[in-house]
Amino acid sequence: MRVVISIGGSVLAPGLDAGRVAGHAAAVERLVEADCEVGAVVGGGGVARDYIGAARRLDANEVQLDQIGIDVTRINARLLISALGDRAAPSPAHEYEGAGEALRRGDVAVMGGVMPGQTTDAVAAALAEYVDADLLVYATSVDGVFSADPDADPDAEQHARLTGTELVDLVAPMSRGAGASAPVDLLAAKLIERSKMRTVVLDGTDPERVAAAVLHGDHSGTDVVPEGSHDPERWT
Amino acid sequence: MRVVISIGGSVLAPGLDAGRVAGHAAAVERLVEADCEVGAVVGGGGVARDYIGAARRLDANEVQLDQIGIDVTRINARLLISALGDRAAPSPAHEYEGAGEALRRGDVAVMGGVMPGQTTDAVAAALAEYVDADLLVYATSVDGVFSADPDADPDAEQHARLTGTELVDLVAPMSRGAGASAPVDLLAAKLIERSKMRTVVLDGTDPERVAAAVLHGDHSGTDVVPEGSHDPERWT
Amino acid sequence: MRVVISIGGSVLAPGLDAGRVAGHAAAVERLVEADCEVGAVVGGGGVARDYIGAARRLDANEVQLDQIGIDVTRINARLLISALGDRAAPSPAHEYEGAGEALRRGDVAVMGGVMPGQTTDAVAAALAEYVDADLLVYATSVDGVFSADPDADPDAEQHARLTGTELVDLVAPMSRGAGASAPVDLLAAKLIERSKMRTVVLDGTDPERVAAAVLHGDHSGTDVVPEGSHDPERWT
Amino acid sequence: MRVVISIGGSVLAPGLDAGRVAGHAAAVERLVEADCEVGAVVGGGGVARDYIGAARRLDANEVQLDQIGIDVTRINARLLISALGDRAAPSPAHEYEGAGEALRRGDVAVMGGVMPGQTTDAVAAALAEYVDADLLVYATSVDGVFSADPDADPDAEQHARLTGTELVDLVAPMSRGAGASAPVDLLAAKLIERSKMRTVVLDGTDPERVAAAVLHGDHSGTDVVPEGSHDPERWT
Amino acid sequence: MRVVISIGGSVLAPGLDAGRVAGHAAAVERLVEADCEVGAVVGGGGVARDYIGAARRLDANEVQLDQIGIDVTRINARLLISALGDRAAPSPAHEYEGAGEALRRGDVAVMGGVMPGQTTDAVAAALAEYVDADLLVYATSVDGVFSADPDADPDAEQHARLTGTELVDLVAPMSRGAGASAPVDLLAAKLIERSKMRTVVLDGTDPERVAAAVLHGDHSGTDVVPEGSHDPERWT
Amino acid sequence: MRVVISIGGSVLAPGLDAGRVAGHAAAVERLVEADCEVGAVVGGGGVARDYIGAARRLDANEVQLDQIGIDVTRINARLLISALGDRAAPSPAHEYEGAGEALRRGDVAVMGGVMPGQTTDAVAAALAEYVDADLLVYATSVDGVFSADPDADPDAEQHARLTGTELVDLVAPMSRGAGASAPVDLLAAKLIERSKMRTVVLDGTDPERVAAAVLHGDHSGTDVVPEGSHDPERWT
Repeated sequence: MRVVISIGGSVLAPGLDAGRVAGHAAAVERLVEADCEVGAVVGGGGVARDYIGAARRLDANEVQLDQIGIDVTRINARLLISALGDRAAPSPAHEYEGAGEALRRGDVAVMGGVMPGQTTDAVAAALAEYVDADLLVYATSVDGVFSADPDADPDAEQHARLTGTELVDLVAPMSRGAGASAPVDLLAAKLIERSKMRTVVLDGTDPERVAAAVLHGDHSGTDVVPEGSHDPERWT
Repeated sequence: MRVVISIGGSVLAPGLDAGRVAGHAAAVERLVEADCEVGAVVGGGGVARDYIGAARRLDANEVQLDQIGIDVTRINARLLISALGDRAAPSPAHEYEGAGEALRRGDVAVMGGVMPGQTTDAVAAALAEYVDADLLVYATSVDGVFSADPDADPDAEQHARLTGTELVDLVAPMSRGAGASAPVDLLAAKLIERSKMRTVVLDGTDPERVAAAVLHGDHSGTDVVPEGSHDPERWT
Repeated sequence: MRVVISIGGSVLAPGLDAGRVAGHAAAVERLVEADCEVGAVVGGGGVARDYIGAARRLDANEVQLDQIGIDVTRINARLLISALGDRAAPSPAHEYEGAGEALRRGDVAVMGGVMPGQTTDAVAAALAEYVDADLLVYATSVDGVFSADPDADPDAEQHARLTGTELVDLVAPMSRGAGASAPVDLLAAKLIERSKMRTVVLDGTDPERVAAAVLHGDHSGTDVVPEGSHDPERWT
Repeated sequence: MRVVISIGGSVLAPGLDAGRVAGHAAAVERLVEADCEVGAVVGGGGVARDYIGAARRLDANEVQLDQIGIDVTRINARLLISALGDRAAPSPAHEYEGAGEALRRGDVAVMGGVMPGQTTDAVAAALAEYVDADLLVYATSVDGVFSADPDADPDAEQHARLTGTELVDLVAPMSRGAGASAPVDLLAAKLIERSKMRTVVLDGTDPERVAAAVLHGDHSGTDVVPEGSHDPERWT
Repeated sequence: MRVVISIGGSVLAPGLDAGRVAGHAAAVERLVEADCEVGAVVGGGGVARDYIGAARRLDANEVQLDQIGIDVTRINARLLISALGDRAAPSPAHEYEGAGEALRRGDVAVMGGVMPGQTTDAVAAALAEYVDADLLVYATSVDGVFSADPDADPDAEQHARLTGTELVDLVAPMSRGAGASAPVDLLAAKLIERSKMRTVVLDGTDPERVAAAVLHGDHSGTDVVPEGSHDPERWT
Repeated sequence: MRVVISIGGSVLAPGLDAGRVAGHAAAVERLVEADCEVGAVVGGGGVARDYIGAARRLDANEVQLDQIGIDVTRINARLLISALGDRAAPSPAHEYEGAGEALRRGDVAVMGGVMPGQTTDAVAAALAEYVDADLLVYATSVDGVFSADPDADPDAEQHARLTGTELVDLVAPMSRGAGASAPVDLLAAKLIERSKMRTVVLDGTDPERVAAAVLHGDHSGTDVVPEGSHDPERWT
């Protein structure tokens, strides 16, 4: 089974906590031991937020801010690579082709951001498409896709199962206005829709949940499944 | 005045017609002579469509299709560079930084696509952001942003003026479903919104219209203007 | 057995026909299944001719024309890569070293052109030299090397067997004057001569002929063999 | 006058304080307005220290730690570039040649680290050598070179003036043992010695001191001067 | 006037003689002072010959030998760059586009070889084509194109004037057989023919002759001129 | 066992002697056959010295001299690669990551210099650190580390065993003044110290000594061992 995991910055590195990174590395290693090919895309987290705030005060434009964010995600990728040791390609891929070649060699491929204007959410979806992954998992700070922001609205209801098209329709209005709260951004949703990629959105604060979802299909988040498709009978 | 022009593939190269490319080059040259700094981003057109069709039949995945499309846009960029002669940087920039450096040197910078998952619409918006352009022009095959696809719906009404937020709200549903007909894609619209970039969407079949819009603000398409902003008193 | 196949643009992609590309991919796959290591170099075909014509009308110089031709060959290489799926390195090598590394990894390596001033004929000969190939096959639109252009001269006679030096002597005058008709260009011939590379020139319109020539030495084209060398007793 | 300024991480970015970065940018701008060509090399500061600590706990080796440190210095370089706006080359140079070309174009060139095993102190000395700078300034957290660590030893005495050879002799033992306290590292000192580069080591906490030292030779730190050379009669 | 000079390895660096390199740099500087834009392509000379001999004894293949030769030409290019100081782009261009950009910036562009299978003769012709040079000069060890090798055949007669086509016809048989003695290789001749580039082949042992030929059209070698063209009325 | 071997230029290529290079290749091959993973870093030797002398007379600065030296080391690396044939990655790695990937693939990785300001001694130490080598061997022209230069001082005594810290203390003063005679340079020594890398310094004139030292721990040079560590009970 080939799987791409998007580990959000707020999940991997809210601050700089080696223990958390080690936990995510351990989950990836369990997948590798179960014969999964794993690509991991990591976000920027707190350090990215701090740097972007400083750069904005220095009048950086949006593309420069994105570039700084990308640089931070790549350092976070180096942390995860350090924790994975010999299992991972030794440096973060900057393009999909490099990540694809690492997977072909049998390495875990770790990436951060790629290009201004694209979040790591979208990078993960594009990587999953590029390597024809069997599964794409978003390890975020909320457990799936809700009808509204669950932190702000106590009546928000979780969707257990969506098609890619439904995901786009849900995410599009969420990504509007201040404090956008979509668990997956709109460009990522559109890539998921076009590639008909089986996708799970879950709370990845505890990395074990990611491993359980990949290995056993066992999670309490949201399944995004292509229209008319069935659950696999067995996982991995 | 610094301007980025997005020349859609259907406008620059519906087939391979040297005369059309020469016309667009002539319009860019008029801008340069009027002391504009010009970045041009070109699309793929008919050749891209043919190649993507062939590749799809050979089971290429979506990222591979995008990559082929990008390659074609860069050849189209070489055509425009040939026509511009010494005025243009001699090869298409593959990233925003290269295009920015060409503009700093006083060259016209010509780009095609950059990365799978991003149209040249979005590249143009990102380049405009990156170089802090004064104006972004989309030379498309329809004359502005309409309430519906004007080719399909005779009652479609043109919007003469929109904010970036209104543009996103209009484009989001258009980019759904079969035969998406948005004149500017959703990622581009979101970049325009966040950067508050003054933008014109117009029918660029006649390249002179692009020059007129840039030099005199004179066009019959749609103006996208940041909320609360006024028309410039004078152009260029 | 390590083999480099040059698939001329007029053979792979006279127009953009997915079926033809699939046929050539199938022939390469048969070779791979017979334990051949395969490098393939593809030409530009009709799209290259159209683009170069347009660029010439826009006053592109010869080096720019070559560069456009190279870009098209690389897109054609992507088509063949799509058709080969997992068997091929996922992107066209731009230099011999990248192609050599792909072969070392066990992938089919697909290239287009490399550098202005060199045809893909010459690239194929240089790649064969670089990877110490056992055989170099030119799949062209005529069945071998003739004393004159067989399309123009009904008395043209085919050479069944040549040394590298004889090939150069034959090709040199053919590559002179309007409508040069050499089946392999002069630089390629000189590389074949210096490397003493066993080479076959054949009609590759039907891809099966390429496979038959490689696997069984069975073809009706021209063998170019180093002086004093004998046919291999067995093939592959 | 051509000057290279090394802005230590503890001076530019002890934390992430936009005001400090703006102050250093303003000092660089004063130099540019006085017709200096300026190269700036920035260090890693607190963020680098935090990341390296986390990576060490994840068993990264020393080269990986260096690489993470280099990545952080390059983000710091982007902050300074943002603050310098159009005056600076738009992205940090990764090699001396890129920085040299930026200076030739009339841009401020900003770099971070280059290669594992080399501090940004050494990068600044190598850049000064490479561009044949007239002056190299180390903006550090102590005001010059002392006989011992002034924070630890109240009897430490400052050297007002040293030759390159004396600098190496002083720095060599300081760079031994725990808590190395040399204001400039040994490799940098050796590069200064071999290139006979006029160098100033000063307290750069207040960026105005850097500008005063460059423009007027006015500072309270340490001058490193080639043997037998005299003070310039006038500055800039 | 834009001129490309090919300085053969046997002319620039038969051994490693700084004085000779300084002489060629002085000639280039005279051209620059006379407002010429200059591109220089240098050969490998004695060091290349020695390295290639050693590598051949170690069973390197022809492409590896070419690559070693290219590496040596680039070091020779660095020598010429050192001698030219600030006038030259600081590192050898590896592709035509880099050299073209250096000329656009007003720098002297210095190159060595580019790609296996191409001599620096051919690189010079391709660079001249790429930058639309007014003149291409081959500074070789014999004074022009002869009917036979003048070192071997006392009756060899010099051609004072040739068309590109005549050059190709003369060079083709010379480049055959042992001890090829063509003053310009066949691929270069064919590029000169197709681009209709005005070309001079002369004895460049004394660098002043190169300057005299470019500045005043004054030389005793061979002029290669496009059919029907006349001498320029004035030079530079 | 993973081993990095630094083959000094004076050992590999005092002149250009194919036999010597073949001898070192044979020693590396013996290690590969004994299941060692081998990285080799080669120096510049006599050709580098000649080129640097010529460039210095042409007023090259120290960084340009270093760059020329690096280029020569990479050609020497190509010689060793030619002699190793299929066992080695086909081109010299320019950065540690490329060399690391070659080792991961099972290839011998051959490098020359990397960056101005760093000798190949230091590159070897950094590569050993980067790939977590078990052993680092310096094949130099003297048999280990002496109390003084053994060529100059008949009373110089060899150190049979040192810690990394002792190595740094010994080397630091040796690297001062004219005719520096340290067998390993200071930056390399400091990298060895910080990485606690087991290191052997020996006379590598006879390549068999390198193989014997790696395979059996059998040599008459100097062992640099981390404090408190013991000899391995068995080798390889």
